[in-house]
Amino acid sequence: MNKQVRLASRPDGLPNDSNWSFEEGPVPKPGEGEVLVKISHISLDPAMRAWMNEGATYIDDVKVGDVMRANTVGEVIESNSPKLKAGDAVQGVLGVQQYAVAKPKELLKIDASLAPIQSYLGVLGWPGMTAYFGLLDIGKAKEGDTVVISGAAGAVGSVTGQIAKIKGCRVIGIAGGPEKCAYLVGELGFDGAIDYKNENIRDRLGVLCPKRVDVFFDNVGGEILDAVLSKIAMHGRVVICGAISQYNNPRFRGPNNYMALLTYRARMEGFVVFDYAAQCGEAAAEIAKWMAEGKLKAKEHVVEGIENFPSALLRLFTGEKLGKLVLEV
Amino acid sequence: MNKQVRLASRPDGLPNDSNWSFEEGPVPKPGEGEVLVKISHISLDPAMRAWMNEGATYIDDVKVGDVMRANTVGEVIESNSPKLKAGDAVQGVLGVQQYAVAKPKELLKIDASLAPIQSYLGVLGWPGMTAYFGLLDIGKAKEGDTVVISGAAGAVGSVTGQIAKIKGCRVIGIAGGPEKCAYLVGELGFDGAIDYKNENIRDRLGVLCPKRVDVFFDNVGGEILDAVLSKIAMHGRVVICGAISQYNNPRFRGPNNYMALLTYRARMEGFVVFDYAAQCGEAAAEIAKWMAEGKLKAKEHVVEGIENFPSALLRLFTGEKLGKLVLEV
Repeated sequence: MNKQVRLASRPDGLPNDSNWSFEEGPVPKPGEGEVLVKISHISLDPAMRAWMNEGATYIDDVKVGDVMRANTVGEVIESNSPKLKAGDAVQGVLGVQQYAVAKPKELLKIDASLAPIQSYLGVLGWPGMTAYFGLLDIGKAKEGDTVVISGAAGAVGSVTGQIAKIKGCRVIGIAGGPEKCAYLVGELGFDGAIDYKNENIRDRLGVLCPKRVDVFFDNVGGEILDAVLSKIAMHGRVVICGAISQYNNPRFRGPNNYMALLTYRARMEGFVVFDYAAQCGEAAAEIAKWMAEGKLKAKEHVVEGIENFPSALLRLFTGEKLGKLVLEV
Repeated sequence: MNKQVRLASRPDGLPNDSNWSFEEGPVPKPGEGEVLVKISHISLDPAMRAWMNEGATYIDDVKVGDVMRANTVGEVIESNSPKLKAGDAVQGVLGVQQYAVAKPKELLKIDASLAPIQSYLGVLGWPGMTAYFGLLDIGKAKEGDTVVISGAAGAVGSVTGQIAKIKGCRVIGIAGGPEKCAYLVGELGFDGAIDYKNENIRDRLGVLCPKRVDVFFDNVGGEILDAVLSKIAMHGRVVICGAISQYNNPRFRGPNNYMALLTYRARMEGFVVFDYAAQCGEAAAEIAKWMAEGKLKAKEHVVEGIENFPSALLRLFTGEKLGKLVLEV
């Protein structure tokens, strides 16, 4: 049987159990040119919350009644295509379910010998690519820059900070709670961390960023964005990667402090990592090299069981996780 | 005697009469290497409101008790410097007063035969330069782009729109009231205008900008910025020139819709025209040429009498003026 999680209704604020329905159906059969994938890991990403809202953003919404969209990794167990064979490890947007039929062009064959398969949902997948291109292409981080990252202990933020260190930047992470802050400085080598739950962000930025902030990589939005804008450096760059503090806020708020962009001749820019698809192979190879050299660490927070999808998703918003959040099917 | 307007107290919201004091003193004497300028015209600019607040933005605040800072033009009437002689027309930040002593390096000699002297406060001065560099260097407007301008009937907006037309863009202005909108389309050749006081901005943008908005040159902020962000084009550029709708708002608000920057891979960037000082001569020459060719028109709204400074300044915020607002001393 194939267990699936479908969108039952659209949430108002934080998703709750009534927004999901669990279904079981027969395992689908691959048609001509198709393969059947047994999904092993499902990625839990902040963008999922946006997909639950009516109306497209950079991608269509999930329709009520549909299987919830999710990035996944798994193994081909039946193939009607010469392009993939049973036993191949693949990554694809196959949804919150145990099995899926797909065409080879919808899948990316991955090398399970290079790194654990779930790494392709994190450091070697879209989160890692988001960190890499957001920091280097949009943020234009360079040696000597002060780089501040919000959501710094998350899947994207933790990789962003480590790449910034590799590039010779001074790196300050903003995260929730002393444990995450200790992890950033003690394990990942950040130059400093700010615990937004217990510290005054502006005061701490003043202490930790004496030359102000050249690059702010923002995953969080809200008050944290305003606080860092108040410390932006001349010609600073604000990389808009996400706004997780606001995704469940029906009165989504922006940066009231945005005129700092004028005062400091600064720039705020958004991006969507899918635009870099053609360059992801090279970036993943570079990240894998850094990992092999011990310069970059990846951490996954694994929750087991597809039935735990609704509660696992909430950890993204409560912050009860460290590193990349993954559901093991 | 030298009449002066000084900052008596800092305003909370819109400035009122209690924020100003009028003083009369002797006409100052130029020292060695200095000149005495008789001020003929005083520029009224939205940035003045920011200078009245405590704390620096891109320039220091005006201290309580000081002569109000203002850009001015006038004539040298006494000179103790070989660099300028009596009769020379000059531009300088000499304040809201009738006479001022200055060093030649604080003044720019201007050519009163090329254009009326007050043009050097508008189309040939900082507002014209702001339009030119904001549109072309920050906004990167190019042929075929759809350019939207807020505060479009103002000193900066009216020049911005005309330069965009010269560059082959589709130009839509946002202004308050049918008279200003008629002026933009009928006299300045804009492709369309939106009356924000009487029309739904989003609906009208949908009609007038079928290919969305490549460049938004924003002088206004607030709801208008949110509305245009909702129609930003892929890889669009938002030029942050000002936020006049918010300067008197103690609860300054930013763009709640800023995540459109992510969805549309767009950029919001601030700038300060003074950074372009070295290139202003060339830009002014190009604008003067366009004026001579009849491609660009300038309009000044002149208020007479230094005693009318407080009420004239308010016209910037009520919108009761067309083109560049100037006080004739």
